[in-house]
Amino acid sequence: MAQHFASDNYAGVCPEALKWLVEANSSGHEPAYGDDQWTQRVCDAIRDLFQTNCDVFYVFNGTAANSLALASLCQSYNSVICHEVAHIETDECGAPEFFSSGAKLMVASGTNGKLTPQAIETIVTRRSDIHYPKPKAVSITQSTEVGTVYQIDEIQAISAMARKHGLALHMDGARFANAVATLGAHPADITWRAGVDVLCFGGTKNGLPVGEAVVFFNRELAQDFAHRVKQGGQLASKMRFISAPWLGLLENDVWLRNARHANAMAQRLHDALIKIPQVEIIFPRESNAVFVKMPQRAANKLLADGWRFYQFIGEGGCRFMCSWDTQKEMVDKLAAAVSEACAG
Amino acid sequence: MAQHFASDNYAGVCPEALKWLVEANSSGHEPAYGDDQWTQRVCDAIRDLFQTNCDVFYVFNGTAANSLALASLCQSYNSVICHEVAHIETDECGAPEFFSSGAKLMVASGTNGKLTPQAIETIVTRRSDIHYPKPKAVSITQSTEVGTVYQIDEIQAISAMARKHGLALHMDGARFANAVATLGAHPADITWRAGVDVLCFGGTKNGLPVGEAVVFFNRELAQDFAHRVKQGGQLASKMRFISAPWLGLLENDVWLRNARHANAMAQRLHDALIKIPQVEIIFPRESNAVFVKMPQRAANKLLADGWRFYQFIGEGGCRFMCSWDTQKEMVDKLAAAVSEACAG
Amino acid sequence: MAQHFASDNYAGVCPEALKWLVEANSSGHEPAYGDDQWTQRVCDAIRDLFQTNCDVFYVFNGTAANSLALASLCQSYNSVICHEVAHIETDECGAPEFFSSGAKLMVASGTNGKLTPQAIETIVTRRSDIHYPKPKAVSITQSTEVGTVYQIDEIQAISAMARKHGLALHMDGARFANAVATLGAHPADITWRAGVDVLCFGGTKNGLPVGEAVVFFNRELAQDFAHRVKQGGQLASKMRFISAPWLGLLENDVWLRNARHANAMAQRLHDALIKIPQVEIIFPRESNAVFVKMPQRAANKLLADGWRFYQFIGEGGCRFMCSWDTQKEMVDKLAAAVSEACAG
Amino acid sequence: MAQHFASDNYAGVCPEALKWLVEANSSGHEPAYGDDQWTQRVCDAIRDLFQTNCDVFYVFNGTAANSLALASLCQSYNSVICHEVAHIETDECGAPEFFSSGAKLMVASGTNGKLTPQAIETIVTRRSDIHYPKPKAVSITQSTEVGTVYQIDEIQAISAMARKHGLALHMDGARFANAVATLGAHPADITWRAGVDVLCFGGTKNGLPVGEAVVFFNRELAQDFAHRVKQGGQLASKMRFISAPWLGLLENDVWLRNARHANAMAQRLHDALIKIPQVEIIFPRESNAVFVKMPQRAANKLLADGWRFYQFIGEGGCRFMCSWDTQKEMVDKLAAAVSEACAG
Repeated sequence: MAQHFASDNYAGVCPEALKWLVEANSSGHEPAYGDDQWTQRVCDAIRDLFQTNCDVFYVFNGTAANSLALASLCQSYNSVICHEVAHIETDECGAPEFFSSGAKLMVASGTNGKLTPQAIETIVTRRSDIHYPKPKAVSITQSTEVGTVYQIDEIQAISAMARKHGLALHMDGARFANAVATLGAHPADITWRAGVDVLCFGGTKNGLPVGEAVVFFNRELAQDFAHRVKQGGQLASKMRFISAPWLGLLENDVWLRNARHANAMAQRLHDALIKIPQVEIIFPRESNAVFVKMPQRAANKLLADGWRFYQFIGEGGCRFMCSWDTQKEMVDKLAAAVSEACAG
Repeated sequence: MAQHFASDNYAGVCPEALKWLVEANSSGHEPAYGDDQWTQRVCDAIRDLFQTNCDVFYVFNGTAANSLALASLCQSYNSVICHEVAHIETDECGAPEFFSSGAKLMVASGTNGKLTPQAIETIVTRRSDIHYPKPKAVSITQSTEVGTVYQIDEIQAISAMARKHGLALHMDGARFANAVATLGAHPADITWRAGVDVLCFGGTKNGLPVGEAVVFFNRELAQDFAHRVKQGGQLASKMRFISAPWLGLLENDVWLRNARHANAMAQRLHDALIKIPQVEIIFPRESNAVFVKMPQRAANKLLADGWRFYQFIGEGGCRFMCSWDTQKEMVDKLAAAVSEACAG
Repeated sequence: MAQHFASDNYAGVCPEALKWLVEANSSGHEPAYGDDQWTQRVCDAIRDLFQTNCDVFYVFNGTAANSLALASLCQSYNSVICHEVAHIETDECGAPEFFSSGAKLMVASGTNGKLTPQAIETIVTRRSDIHYPKPKAVSITQSTEVGTVYQIDEIQAISAMARKHGLALHMDGARFANAVATLGAHPADITWRAGVDVLCFGGTKNGLPVGEAVVFFNRELAQDFAHRVKQGGQLASKMRFISAPWLGLLENDVWLRNARHANAMAQRLHDALIKIPQVEIIFPRESNAVFVKMPQRAANKLLADGWRFYQFIGEGGCRFMCSWDTQKEMVDKLAAAVSEACAG
Repeated sequence: MAQHFASDNYAGVCPEALKWLVEANSSGHEPAYGDDQWTQRVCDAIRDLFQTNCDVFYVFNGTAANSLALASLCQSYNSVICHEVAHIETDECGAPEFFSSGAKLMVASGTNGKLTPQAIETIVTRRSDIHYPKPKAVSITQSTEVGTVYQIDEIQAISAMARKHGLALHMDGARFANAVATLGAHPADITWRAGVDVLCFGGTKNGLPVGEAVVFFNRELAQDFAHRVKQGGQLASKMRFISAPWLGLLENDVWLRNARHANAMAQRLHDALIKIPQVEIIFPRESNAVFVKMPQRAANKLLADGWRFYQFIGEGGCRFMCSWDTQKEMVDKLAAAVSEACAG
């Protein structure tokens, strides 16, 4: 079986990104640490994309992007408010705490994996004593860990609440492209125009081999971030190979095409699965993931047959993730396999 | 001007590494985080290379490789003994201190950038009170920051001293290949057989786009290192693109061919520069670097003419670094330019 | 009003502790950093008390005692399992995360503020992937934050589960004395004989001016702890003034007498409050605290009248804490005031 | 032998400090964590002393005072410039690095243990690349580790240089009182009026049982410092016992009287030792320490006879430290013993 639904990071590099990686290698020697022509070009392209003079930094992965960004927003005795299923809370092995030297994540629940202004305010106002790590930042994931998407007005409401309490707003955009594709909105409208201070713009899941961009719309917060990146072990010496592939994503809106395709494949899968009586869709399909519940024995059969996907959210919970290169045929095959496994 | 002598990380990706990166992209979906076929293959190849069952981890750059390795050797209240020109001391913006949460580097001087057993013992035995960070590891760089190379017996003597005082031995091998090429020794003989516990095996300067391998010969010290890598933001999701290019280096000993070439180009430059009366060679040429002193006005002229190299070690000190792709013609051109600048 | 029920740290120094502090000042000069006669005596007294050759360290407060102890049990990528109301989770402003450089607290709920073996196992076995901070220690509070006490067999069951999964067992004993007084057990029986590796033995709330003892029953875990204490800013230079007052507590079992008195006062308060129809006792009274719910307006009246106590656990939740010097008359006055406020 | 010359922290508590500690215990219950009457009074007294509205915090010892203060001045990727014999560099077991999560100390030499503006500028301007931890603070010790004292104009010159380069100025005042006594200057004149941003005002060596005050003249830098203190394990619950003894020092200028006495005893010792032919005074006697060189065999004899003092600065180097309670008779006895040991 050539394709999987476990994660969109099982996919490889999209051709456009690879083309630019190879191209960047053809220019002979280039200054290291980002003083090369490619890095400069990509920074400009990202500023164009967001229509604002933001500060852009390249790091190797999402763990680092989010952790370094959050570390720049708070001190060790501060806290970061996020949803209880936020990747920074559940899947980073304590990286945000490590890079911030101890800032605590304060989690809230919220329907469909989304944080609400009210939940933020509850956490901020719960206590104000010295023994409580002072909230300093809010982190939201767009699209969320359960495949849903914050609407523009939801982000605006969150950022208004953050501002009210003096909190910075961080967006984990590991799948930012998928959210933009879903919303059909301008990238600026769901970030800085809606009050986001810093975006971790995911490249890897969108088709890069490696690398994420940390985009500071609030440029004051980016002060000395280059030093933080260096000390954090995230400064690539041959940076052109991290940056140049972004050109492949940004030129001709390949990043959006990739995201739209992944979203469409998820929709196709969703539409097929919803017809299977034993299958229950557990989160609205809004990006490139489909979350379902099925009989555990059906899930087991699929795994035994070599299908790969994540199991969680209890008995029979399954996550199917589509990527930029997921083929229709594979989606249909999976849907048929699910149907058969459930019937079996 | 297409080639520079500032750093070997100005060079691009060698063709063999690029071939395997592209090849790794042709296999469709692959499990993430290192559970892919390519990563497995490279780990085996490195174990074969060193003829021992070592534990191998891939990280993004040398800052992280060294810092995470040292963090695994000591606690925050320990110290690491190294040479005063060690890269970990001079050029990591405090990364070793950050990743170890405060371990102090204790520096010693030593001829030609090399640490000596005696210097280690002096630092270890200087004090034993509670106010002195307890030495726990020794770090040596092979080849060194000034382009020299530790002989096998020098490493053995250092490791004997380290063992005597219960210290682990770390080798910063950002240019390990160049040292092996110079010594003509088996890689095992200058690492674990000589008492090295952990090697940071540099790939980037040898022709990779990105990535270093952390090789634990002392496997007990590698316990939970995977968690440390993850928390440290160094776990690549699409790890095949970090690991597969190593195959290009390891197959047919391309890594050694690359290193030998760089060394030879440095020798060629050295042999030309030594003839210029105003130029003084300040460190023995033993790997791919040539360190000289020349009149500062000559250095200025070279810079003005577009040559790129590092200036340091005071007035007129210059470092010229050759890489896997440095061309003879460029070396000769540089030598001629130096000659002219000195004469001018 | 001379006495309060907000916290047992509102009380002063008990006469016996003060006597020894003054006494320690009468010996003229003494070596610093613990090499004095008093510190040695107290260490021996604590070893006698626990009937084992434990390693004893003195630190300034409970935040440091717990945080340094936990830091010695785990690395930054590990996690510590504790109850959701554990002081280390709710009231340390991220100190455990700071001192461990990022270890995550994994919380469980459990009746009456007590962790259960099953809850520990659920957290340990929930996941084993690299993205999940690897559990390495369990922390329990004795007596608990809600005034209850772990029975010996409960501790034994927890330590058995901890051992099963390779976890160290830490006991936050800020009110250890109160628990020993309640259980009538030998201190050794609820610590090392029941499998506790390290106890933070609280002195401040029991009548000291400042200072807690960190007692390592598992002496291997204490390796280099003195360096950790020093680096953590917890090594007193004139240590005799931290250690000597412990003699006042330990001689003639004053620590137990103090605890028994506080417990008895809480029992007296409990017995009075339970008769007030509008008051509900919300946790069993097992140490020196009484937790009740009363009409919020009654709580407000008490506060307005100058009574000091903690409000929490929602609307009308109140904590009344008794100390070594709480007077019967004050207890009775408080009970009368509550009765009147509820009736009013 | 009742008195020693090893360190001024071998002395006990001065009567005035002890009086207030006992007094603070007589007021019954007091709110914890600094909300008590005594802490408030001492803060006001310190503000009066310095004739400015500074922010004052109490911590347990000098390690913590300096480390937390420096951590509040810089981020992990910054560096702190100090003298190579600074206590923060030589005797804190990496505490400044730990509390700042990796900030590097950049050391300079300088006559008589004093940093110079030129040395600061050399370090700041040496490099400006991303691999060099960006200097953010200067730390000076007053009086210095070798017993000398910065003159007002020296401090002014250092602070001017610090300001020029955007660096904050920290003063380690473990023996601040001795410097003030020597200079006969107003405390404000050698701190904030000379450009010091934060002073760690030492109490322990001046006669307290435990505790130092961190005094922020630059109040912006004190933002959230209370949270940092809490997370750093330095917030005393029964804080009155840390703060109240300060009243004993501040009332009637006991702190100055104590310092003057210690200084005078050092002068007396100095005047006696200088007459011994085999003894060489190696640093000017400007505070309460006398540094000499004598034949090593003489030093050995003194130690064998039970005298306690520090040996360092090589063969025969000895430090004799006087304290608030050092007796003339002991000084004379020591001088006689040195004379005899040297003659012997």
